[in-house]
Amino acid sequence: MRAGRPVVAVDVGGTLTKTALVDGRGEVLEVRSEPTVLRSATGLLDQLALAVADLAAAHAEGHPDAVPAAVGVHVPGLVDDARGTVLLAENLGLRDVPLRDQLAARTGLPVSLGNDARGAGTAEFRMGAARGARTAVVISIGTGIGGAVFVDGRLHDGDGFGCELGHMPVLVPGRRAPVVCACGGPSCLEQWASAGGIARSYARVTGRPAHGAREVFDAARAGDDDAARVVGDGLDALALAVAQLATVLAPEVVVIAGGLSRAGAELFDPLHERLEQLLTFHRRPRLVPARFGDGAGVIASALRADELLEQLVLPLQQGPSS
Amino acid sequence: MRAGRPVVAVDVGGTLTKTALVDGRGEVLEVRSEPTVLRSATGLLDQLALAVADLAAAHAEGHPDAVPAAVGVHVPGLVDDARGTVLLAENLGLRDVPLRDQLAARTGLPVSLGNDARGAGTAEFRMGAARGARTAVVISIGTGIGGAVFVDGRLHDGDGFGCELGHMPVLVPGRRAPVVCACGGPSCLEQWASAGGIARSYARVTGRPAHGAREVFDAARAGDDDAARVVGDGLDALALAVAQLATVLAPEVVVIAGGLSRAGAELFDPLHERLEQLLTFHRRPRLVPARFGDGAGVIASALRADELLEQLVLPLQQGPSS
Repeated sequence: MRAGRPVVAVDVGGTLTKTALVDGRGEVLEVRSEPTVLRSATGLLDQLALAVADLAAAHAEGHPDAVPAAVGVHVPGLVDDARGTVLLAENLGLRDVPLRDQLAARTGLPVSLGNDARGAGTAEFRMGAARGARTAVVISIGTGIGGAVFVDGRLHDGDGFGCELGHMPVLVPGRRAPVVCACGGPSCLEQWASAGGIARSYARVTGRPAHGAREVFDAARAGDDDAARVVGDGLDALALAVAQLATVLAPEVVVIAGGLSRAGAELFDPLHERLEQLLTFHRRPRLVPARFGDGAGVIASALRADELLEQLVLPLQQGPSS
Repeated sequence: MRAGRPVVAVDVGGTLTKTALVDGRGEVLEVRSEPTVLRSATGLLDQLALAVADLAAAHAEGHPDAVPAAVGVHVPGLVDDARGTVLLAENLGLRDVPLRDQLAARTGLPVSLGNDARGAGTAEFRMGAARGARTAVVISIGTGIGGAVFVDGRLHDGDGFGCELGHMPVLVPGRRAPVVCACGGPSCLEQWASAGGIARSYARVTGRPAHGAREVFDAARAGDDDAARVVGDGLDALALAVAQLATVLAPEVVVIAGGLSRAGAELFDPLHERLEQLLTFHRRPRLVPARFGDGAGVIASALRADELLEQLVLPLQQGPSS
């Protein structure tokens, strides 16, 4: 279903932004990575417009076949895909930014904008670890937690408000998580189980900073009881969320994506074990790691740009509508 | 969309079974109610076959227009609608019973079988409190808790395993509910928040039996601290489940159905309040009581029989398939 034309794939992260030129066969010709301009809609727009122009120009001479035809962009946060608007991106410091149309105006190219976790989830659902399933959930665990929920073959985005798995409250009200979430929630899953949440919880419990969840997992394995408790709490919360999804949606497969999925058996074995304690008659979802790793964001954005081109091509092929 | 033919609507409950003859305009001509035969698939089958035959015979003379053309049946439990099989109905004491085909063989009528809460939810979604919504959740709170989840206009039943809202685990593993659920789950929503669960919790806390949740609500209002705590725990758990559904699915409306929905403001006001404590950026679902009360089961079963007739009529109208 590739439209067969080169695209620019943009993956805006809370720390780094990757911009890639992808040719019509899906080959990545070049990737650039730079710190994301934060807390400024115009600053970010300038950055993205420049990156797109640079990539296009760098290949204009030597590769006449690599002139991009569209741009796909994913950002972390609430996105109204249909309107192309960033509703709220806490980590980028953006609110109500019509980024799609603004970037299209600046680059002269058609742009499609979406939420990063839903984009990565779509890549897994179409071509990755959830391929072949009708109902599936992809949980992306990195600095925060994002998600993508597929019901009967289709992404359910709830007009931009669905799939926010990182902000599922996972405790009965009155029992509060150690730290209030950036969203203001008293007990969001990502406070317990994201890489960032695990590092913060460890720092709070011990008074010693942790540079990422990896360090806390390592400390737990080395016999640090505080670390073991923090990791255990995270796994408890994650198991609870997966069990709730299994109860409501009965997905065939649950994919764990993002940085934390690289913890492998150290994550999946205790998660399986906890899930078994929570589920009874429920259909067990297959619990699997994502197929796509660090490159997921770029793949997803290229896929998004492809889809846009297909949508644009379709009306042209059909001629003027009747 | 009424097929315009009389049907028999059967609502099998954990205590009573209602059987109704419904004419082509949707008027209920007669309803019978009798204690459900429990823990015997053949016993229940005999009971249902007899009730259908009785209703049909009673009207055969005086009402030639009231000869039923199909039977719709709802049961509480896990049902595979497509195969017409009761997978597991704890409260009826049934497991793996192909009730649809058995009842069709006994009555000579086409039969459609489904889960009671999904049936009642469908009635609310099509004609009741959730009418007009694309994405909605109906939570039926009675002796137990059942649910129906509608995504983009369609019921999502997860091959019979979805929508089991009563068995959403609502606590982090390791923190156990007062009583293990009938399903074996350590912390199912229905242990905390169903009418049965509230009565059981009160009895456990005080050593005094409660004859239903109504009594516990009344005691709480009269200043009984134990009752207030039990009701509060139930509302906490229910708010948590609604917040989780709002986070994952972003439904436009959440309908509370079943006996407990009659508690009115006593239920809805504190539920709203708790929900506000849990939700931040999330889209707020409208939180409303069901339109259909005690008669929901019969309405839903008549609707199910209607649908079956439409499906049967369609191929006939289209002629032999090519």
